[in-house]
Formats: sequence, structure tokens, C-alpha cells
Amino acid sequence: MAAGEVWLRELEAIGGPGDVVVRPGDLAAYGYDATPGYRGVPDAVVFVRSTEQVQEVVRLARRHRLPVIARGSGTNLSGGTVPVSGGIVVAFARMNRILEIDEANLTVTVEPGVLTAQIHQAVEERGLFYPPDPGSMAISTIGGNVAENAGGLRGLKYGVTGDYVMGLDAVLASGELVRTGGKNVKDVAGYDLTSLFVGSEGTLGIVTRVTLKLLPLPEYRRVAVATFGAVEAAARAVSRIIAARIVPATLEFLDRGTIGAVEDYAHVGLPTGVEAMLLMAQDGPQPVVDRDVERMAVLCREEGALDVQVAASPQEGDRLMAARRFALSALARRRPTTILEDATVPRSRLAEMVRAIQRAARRHEVEICTFGHAGDGNLHPTCLTDERDPAEMERVEAAFEEIFAAAVDLGGTITGEHGVGLSKRSYLGWKLGETGLGVLRAVKQALDPEGILNPGKVVPETTRRRQVVRSA
Amino acid sequence: MAAGEVWLRELEAIGGPGDVVVRPGDLAAYGYDATPGYRGVPDAVVFVRSTEQVQEVVRLARRHRLPVIARGSGTNLSGGTVPVSGGIVVAFARMNRILEIDEANLTVTVEPGVLTAQIHQAVEERGLFYPPDPGSMAISTIGGNVAENAGGLRGLKYGVTGDYVMGLDAVLASGELVRTGGKNVKDVAGYDLTSLFVGSEGTLGIVTRVTLKLLPLPEYRRVAVATFGAVEAAARAVSRIIAARIVPATLEFLDRGTIGAVEDYAHVGLPTGVEAMLLMAQDGPQPVVDRDVERMAVLCREEGALDVQVAASPQEGDRLMAARRFALSALARRRPTTILEDATVPRSRLAEMVRAIQRAARRHEVEICTFGHAGDGNLHPTCLTDERDPAEMERVEAAFEEIFAAAVDLGGTITGEHGVGLSKRSYLGWKLGETGLGVLRAVKQALDPEGILNPGKVVPETTRRRQVVRSA
Repeated sequence: MAAGEVWLRELEAIGGPGDVVVRPGDLAAYGYDATPGYRGVPDAVVFVRSTEQVQEVVRLARRHRLPVIARGSGTNLSGGTVPVSGGIVVAFARMNRILEIDEANLTVTVEPGVLTAQIHQAVEERGLFYPPDPGSMAISTIGGNVAENAGGLRGLKYGVTGDYVMGLDAVLASGELVRTGGKNVKDVAGYDLTSLFVGSEGTLGIVTRVTLKLLPLPEYRRVAVATFGAVEAAARAVSRIIAARIVPATLEFLDRGTIGAVEDYAHVGLPTGVEAMLLMAQDGPQPVVDRDVERMAVLCREEGALDVQVAASPQEGDRLMAARRFALSALARRRPTTILEDATVPRSRLAEMVRAIQRAARRHEVEICTFGHAGDGNLHPTCLTDERDPAEMERVEAAFEEIFAAAVDLGGTITGEHGVGLSKRSYLGWKLGETGLGVLRAVKQALDPEGILNPGKVVPETTRRRQVVRSA
Repeated sequence: MAAGEVWLRELEAIGGPGDVVVRPGDLAAYGYDATPGYRGVPDAVVFVRSTEQVQEVVRLARRHRLPVIARGSGTNLSGGTVPVSGGIVVAFARMNRILEIDEANLTVTVEPGVLTAQIHQAVEERGLFYPPDPGSMAISTIGGNVAENAGGLRGLKYGVTGDYVMGLDAVLASGELVRTGGKNVKDVAGYDLTSLFVGSEGTLGIVTRVTLKLLPLPEYRRVAVATFGAVEAAARAVSRIIAARIVPATLEFLDRGTIGAVEDYAHVGLPTGVEAMLLMAQDGPQPVVDRDVERMAVLCREEGALDVQVAASPQEGDRLMAARRFALSALARRRPTTILEDATVPRSRLAEMVRAIQRAARRHEVEICTFGHAGDGNLHPTCLTDERDPAEMERVEAAFEEIFAAAVDLGGTITGEHGVGLSKRSYLGWKLGETGLGVLRAVKQALDPEGILNPGKVVPETTRRRQVVRSA
């Protein structure tokens, strides 16, 4: 038997029948994720069904010095699940049980392969609420959400995935299992390992079980939409809302290009030809929701909104919110390649950031539409391009480089909710500095000294030199 | 010049006039904190006034292999600031400015020496709200709160200190400065270093600046109090409140002994002679608050409350809440030594935990009163004892050992909000297991390879062997 086949026999002994994929044609599907431009080829894929299997796979990988890449649905947008160095993809699609909904402690405990939307549905049937709602929630897994610390449309009021992870099981690079946190609202027993694993993209350990915090389901919800003739007016309305001490459940921004694309795609009756739109939602007890939505409508009008519509019914509200969720699909139809980015700034810098994005697009002659979470400053400049055109792709890269630099200069960050993965690595030093990168490397080295866990992700080897950008 | 004096001259060159303390009589005050039974003697204390000074002190300490212990007000209850190996205490009492309240981004940025209550006052004047309210907030510093990840009475609804830390500056063991996070609601640029430093008790880095998240100040607040003839009835009322999907701002428990001690001390009109009391508060818009408080009152009555009183006015509510805050002071008057512990369980296990505490106290013939945060399962069994009596102290230790074991067995933790420090180290393995301790050690080694940052804290050398406890 060839040396290269030993590990494969071992893997087949670990995985159940039909759970190990090795045919080259089948492997190709696990060589990429939702991020354009990144491809790899794994040596094998194993669909795990238990924590013990994950431990055995990691021990095998360690013995044979093979990379191990955890994978949910592969919806991530930073190349976090691309097996750039080959190795074994640990696929969680079949380890997908909701283990427990604990109504007394307001927790749900799940396996990593459960779809986020399934968690929403299961807990909402009990009058409970899991707030994080990343754009991909219908098809993304909770394991992936935890690995990337995914955000969503409710971040301003409710926070992100990590704010709801109370405890987890993680398989370490040694194959050992560590169990962090639990169902305790307060727990300061040792360093916060839960938060260390959340967002670490499978580079420090592989999460095999998660206990999530739940809230009571808000009893009522209302949506309003406002259009503006200028981005600045929309940004001013956002500032006025926050200054009025309103924390809406959702406060989304769409620019002219995005509005047009969504309307073309979904025909939901959005007013095209306006420069900006704010989509606002509040949830909670009805009197409070009604008051907040009315106040937001007034503030938008005071800041010169062209039109403000409060949804007449929950159904109309759902339809408007769905329109926002179509944004990526709608934009993706326009050109062969869609690159959805994730530049984030403190919300007070929103207008400046939108202008910086527009400037970068003009300067580098690329088409960028912008939408995102205005309430939390998390914007998604989305480039419509064609990855088969190397000259255009160079301009795209130059534009995004300028956008990330602008975000950092505005006190922002290079990624708000998509993670570092492969695509943000060389920018990470702009945010963390060399000292911060040093801490990341030290932590990675401490937990995965042999570098078998999702190698090449998060922690960069080098930092891109910042270009001097000519003023606009 | 003696070798031992070189570092002292260097330290005096770093600290401003009057900012370096070296007289043995003066040093004694920095040899202990609020935790009974732990004492040390530092070699020097330096009152720092800038991050740069902290960097210089750490570099000096590294050159001379001296421990560095960060210290706020020393109110912690786990021995976290006791300089057990001597060294330099870095005191933050004079680095105490509120640097910025950013109303547009809902953040406050502070130096570590600011008192927590000063932050409350400063932001509330602007209609903003910093929820964490540890018992010691009138005299504790925010730096200490961050180091211990302090909790408080509003944890159930609002979370703990760490939930509000958006970014921080930390001086590493190398003397380098790392800046984590910022004012971005969403930020996933690299591992969550912010959360790693929060609660690390100065063992991974010394925090010199903190940016905290703020909320709008709730517009209204109401308090109610219910008394019960049995602990179980109070615990059932807590469960009913949560099952009714109410998340109160505060839901505190006091047992018979605590109620009597508070009434003796503060004469606030509490009904003595009852077995348990729940102190309930809700905040938010008035209609919601009124509804929630009325519903909680009804649920308490349904579970057999002896009496339920809704505070007639905010002033009466404040007086009742103040009574709860007197608990420690009131109990501390009864015997020479008060040991306030921090066993925490999922809230559904509250009654079982209270019974386990009572059983342990009886078995080991010590006096333990219990109060705490019923809504989040965070109990403070408080032993009234005398540290000068070695035989009694042995029984106290045995009782607490049994209590921690019971907490872990109930799915709880050995510390909810006080930290590990010195006093919980040998129990930490019961919660984290040897694998978890291994991760802690690896992280500590990675960030502080020479072990100069608050040595001896958090990460244990050994784990106490669990005694087999006879069943009750």
C-alpha cells in the first residue's frame, strides 16, 4: 500500500459508510466557497456525525501532518473554508441536530451543521428568539456563523453571533476536547476561551457543539422605508435616530445602484432613481414600536427624505425586509463576478465611508454598489466585475485596497462580519498593527503548534504595504 | 549602588514626583485586597498617569525579572491584586480621566482608574446608560471591573462588563502596546483579543484604556419586593417569571439570614423572619415596565408569596434596591471575617444550589448566609467567620469546597463574577478539566513567556482533588 493511502484507509475507518468522499470529481465541490477567486482541492472530505469522530480525524491528521478544514455550508465571503493546502475537509452537514431547547434557562444547544434558519424556526415556535440573522441564514450553518462570528441585520440592537454563544465544545489540534462556558449567564472561570474560539475560523480548534443564548420573542414588529436625494441626508437621518436615543432592530442602507438592481430583480415596488434608501424596523411591545417607528419617520422627513412609508401590515413589512435580503442576489445577476465586501466604520462616519467607496470606484473605473447595516456602520460595497478579466480584477483590487485604507483611517475595520479568511489577511496588519499580529501568531502557535488547523487562514505571513492614495 | 537599587532608581525616573511608593509602612496597604486571608508585600508601588509610563514600567520589570501587578481600588474578592511574589504594583488611581463620551457612536472611552460610579453619573447626565453595576461600583475602578469581568445586579437583562467592552489598549509583557477593537459595533478582524484581555486579571497584559458601549438610559424604572416562607417557593417564582418571557432588569434573592442582617444594619423596614425575599426591578418604557412588574407580582403571589409590595415611588424603589446593596456591609458586621463567595448555576438549578449551600454549612458547622442574583443563577454564599481561628477556617474551606463541587455538578461554575485570582485557582480544573487548563497555560505562556504579569493568578499549578461528599 502506498504511504499516501494509509491515512485514507484510516479515514474510511472513522467515517461511516458513504461519509468519506475521495473521488476527484466529487472533491471539487469542496474546493471553494462563496468567495470569488479562491480555489483549492482537498485530499478528502469526511461528513462527521459526532464529536468523537472529529477527534479521531484530527488525531489522524496530526499523525500524517495533514491540514484539517472545518466546513458548514461554505457560504462565507472571505475564503475561510477554501482548502488552499489540500488536506481533509471536515463537513458538518450531517451533524445537524438541535440537541435541546432549554426554556427555563433560555438556551438552545445545537450541533454545528444545523442551519441558522432552522434554529430561528425551532425557537420561535416556543416564543423564543435567536437574534443573529446573517444574510445567508437560510443556507448557512450555525457552525459557520460561529467560526466567522457572523453578523446580520439586527446587529445594532442585538449584537452578533458571538454575543449569543454561551458555551461550546471544541476539538483542539491535539485531538483533545475542551468544553467552555455553559448555561451560566455569568461565568468568569479562567480566560474567555469561548470568545477566543468564536470567529477563529477553525484555526484554533474545531467547534462541535454550541450553546446559544435566547431571548423572549418580541411580540410586535414594524417596518418603515425612507428615500433620499443624497447619501448625506440618509446618513444624517441615521445620526438623528441614534441621537434621539432610539435603537432600532434594523436600520439598513441601500444606494441607488442597489435599489435599482433589487427592483429589477424582485419587483417589490421600490422607488428607483433615488440616491439612497433607509429600511427601518423596530420590534418589542407594540406601544414602544409604534412610537419609535413614528419618531424615525419624523426624523427622516426632517432630514429631507423624499418619501417615508410606514408598512401598513406585518406582511408589507416582511416584503420590504425581503427586498433588502435580495440585494446580493439582485446584484449578482448583473455581471459574471460579484465581490461583496465588508468595510465597517463607527456609524458617525457612514457618509464619509460611502463617499470614499464612490471615489475609489470612480478612480479605478469599476462598478461598486453599496448597501449594508447603516445602524452599525457595517457597509457592503459590492463590486460587479468579471474575474476572467485580469486587467479589471487589478483595478478591483486597487479599489478595495483604497476602501479598506479609508475604513481604517475613519476608525473602522477591514471586516465587520465576514471574517479574515484568505481575502483579508494581507490587510489585517492595517487594523491590528504588527504588535497585534504578533499576539495573533503567538496564540495560533500556542494552540496549533503544528499548524494543521485550517492553515493559511486569519493569521497573515505578511502585510500589504499601504499605497499613498492621491486626494480626490 | 546595590544591585537591588538599580531598578528602584529607574522606577523613580519613570514615575512622577510623589508617584512612587517604597516605604515599608506605606507598601503594606498594597499587599492585600478585599479578599480575606491573602497577603503579600510589593517591592514598590507606582502611580501611573499614562500608557507610556506603564510601558516603561513593564520594560523595567522585564529587564529585572520583577512581577508587575496592576491595581485599581483593590475591591476584588478573589485575591487577584495581592502581590504574592512581591514586585511592582502599578496603581491606576491617578490615571482616572473620562477621555470622551461619543454620543453619536454611543461609546465612552476611559482610563482604567475611573470609578465605575463616575462613569454611570457622567453618561446618565447625557441620557445614556452603562449597565454593569458590580456591588462595589461606588469605589471600584473600571480597570478592575475589566480585569475581573465584573457582573452586578443587572446581569440577567444587560450582561456583564465584558459585554460592554468594545475595544481596549493593553501593554503586553514585552512592553509593546496592542490596541484591540474600537467603536465598531461589528468587528471580526482577527481573534477576539478584546475578550481575551477582559477577565484575564492583568496576567496577559495591562489594560490602559477602555472604550465601552453605551445604551440609551431607560426612561422609567420600578421595583417590587416579595417574601416567601420557603426558598423553593422563591425559586419557583423566578422560574415562572422567566417562563412568562419576562426579562427583568434585576431579580435578586436574599435568604433569611441576609434579610435579618440588612434590617439590623439599615432599618429599611424589611420583613424579618421570612425564609426568602425576591427583589425585582424592571426598566424601560413605562407601559412595559408597569405591565412586567404587575405580572411578576402576580406570579409571586401564585407561587405562595407571603407578601408582595410594589414600590409606590422611584424613591421607595431606590431604598429597597439600596437595601440589597447593604447586604455585604450588613453581614460583615456580624463576625470578624466575611468570606463572600460566588458559586453560580444555570438559573433553573437555583433552589438546588441554595439547599446545597445550606447543607454544606450545617455539615461543617459554619454560618453561611446567601444572597445574590437569582435571575442569572449567580449566588453569593457568604460565610461569617474568624480567620484567626484555624480550626474554624478549616471547616469553612471544607464547606466551600463542597459548595463549588455542587455548583459544578449542577452545570454551574466556580465563579460567576469575582474571578479566579488566587482563591479559586485550585478549583478551576473542576470546571475546565485538565484540557481546559492546558489551553489556559498555553495562552499564558504565549503572551507572557517570562511570567512577569501578575504571577500566580488565574492559571493554577495544581488542581485540588475532589473529596467524596457523603450524601445529605
